[in-house]
Amino acid sequence: MSQIQQLYEGKAKILYITDEPEILLAHYKDDATAFNAQKRGKITGKGEINCAIASHLFQLLEREGIPTHYIDCPAPNQMRVKRVKIIPLEVVVRNIAAGSLCQQTGLPVGKILPNPLVEFYLKDDALGDPLLTRDRLLLLDLATPEQVNLLQEEALKINQILIAFFGRCGITLVDFKLEFGLDSSQEMLLADEISPDTCRLWNQAETDPDKRVMDKDRFRRDLGNVEDAYQQVLAKVLSC
Amino acid sequence: MSQIQQLYEGKAKILYITDEPEILLAHYKDDATAFNAQKRGKITGKGEINCAIASHLFQLLEREGIPTHYIDCPAPNQMRVKRVKIIPLEVVVRNIAAGSLCQQTGLPVGKILPNPLVEFYLKDDALGDPLLTRDRLLLLDLATPEQVNLLQEEALKINQILIAFFGRCGITLVDFKLEFGLDSSQEMLLADEISPDTCRLWNQAETDPDKRVMDKDRFRRDLGNVEDAYQQVLAKVLSC
Repeated sequence: MSQIQQLYEGKAKILYITDEPEILLAHYKDDATAFNAQKRGKITGKGEINCAIASHLFQLLEREGIPTHYIDCPAPNQMRVKRVKIIPLEVVVRNIAAGSLCQQTGLPVGKILPNPLVEFYLKDDALGDPLLTRDRLLLLDLATPEQVNLLQEEALKINQILIAFFGRCGITLVDFKLEFGLDSSQEMLLADEISPDTCRLWNQAETDPDKRVMDKDRFRRDLGNVEDAYQQVLAKVLSC
Repeated sequence: MSQIQQLYEGKAKILYITDEPEILLAHYKDDATAFNAQKRGKITGKGEINCAIASHLFQLLEREGIPTHYIDCPAPNQMRVKRVKIIPLEVVVRNIAAGSLCQQTGLPVGKILPNPLVEFYLKDDALGDPLLTRDRLLLLDLATPEQVNLLQEEALKINQILIAFFGRCGITLVDFKLEFGLDSSQEMLLADEISPDTCRLWNQAETDPDKRVMDKDRFRRDLGNVEDAYQQVLAKVLSC
């Protein structure tokens, strides 16, 4: 398989067409963005770290029965994935209140939610990735009611698997964002990545609200030691 | 009944306690605000106009079986209402895309929705009245699931009644905001007001997208002739 032509450059990855029509090559970048790309930077080594973490988690999820786009990693920052048409939704699962949920509702950061909250956001940078109600999602024809139910179910299953896994690593899974896509046979696959870029992860060994942060919030909030935190997540993920 | 003590001053009304504990007096003001009170002004005569329109619509709705807080109007800009504890939700019903729905989703202004859309917003100026999903509404303990269902049903019934009424007046009901409250026996009553401040109303005799506007959008968007438009709505409402 040879790398041929760039298909799409996103904020954290470049996707290349390969000589196999159903397979793409994802190149994980060190580039970091936040606040709808208003804040930009680089996190040295992030491409390789996130690729390794995502690879590990996709394989874990596959073993647990979640269909994903993951194939393999031909190089440390490269992942071969099944080609899918991305559903333009960010599916967010929240176990603990943080981020925009707190800003928008006034809930205190750190409040443990009585049940995991699955939320849908429109994947549209120009509109600022707005929160969608179920009715708005259906009105915009972004998915069928059956697909919405399936997304919700898959997101909750993935949450259970990841909570248990990260728990064994001494990490609390606060919330995370998923993207799904449809392959050529219309099967829904988990796509994009799962990494400290897309999850809020708190170190259970730390109680200080800034020190415990092991995810992109260190970059968003200028907490420092961003690379260290990402490296620590990788080390924990690989050792669990 | 004598006016005794101010209970609360809102953006468009002042509520007074009366000597009857279950009755409040609402004083409709000429003050106009928009964009979460960042824009402020006065619309001459608005207090009396909105009081008269709301009075007419509350009586119409009561005749159609919708319980409201309305009692009577002892003066042109004053309304006696049953005392309720307001549920801190703005219940918005949309028949045609406009306003924040378009800004947030990219839907074009004027798109007729296949079904009326009932949406809930948190009534909280400090948070900017954010859109709530059903799950967020329940998470914030703003209402019980049964109350949410009842709010949805009542809102849709009110929509049907008002669409038919305004249709007879030559006015298209684009969208509107409702507030509900619980009286001392926990009955849910339609409260607040229904007026050109809280509805988008388009004159069916006009096709120009600015000229047809008969509601607070004239003030929000500096379209001019605000008082005239409100007066016209009142005249049409009284003549239908």
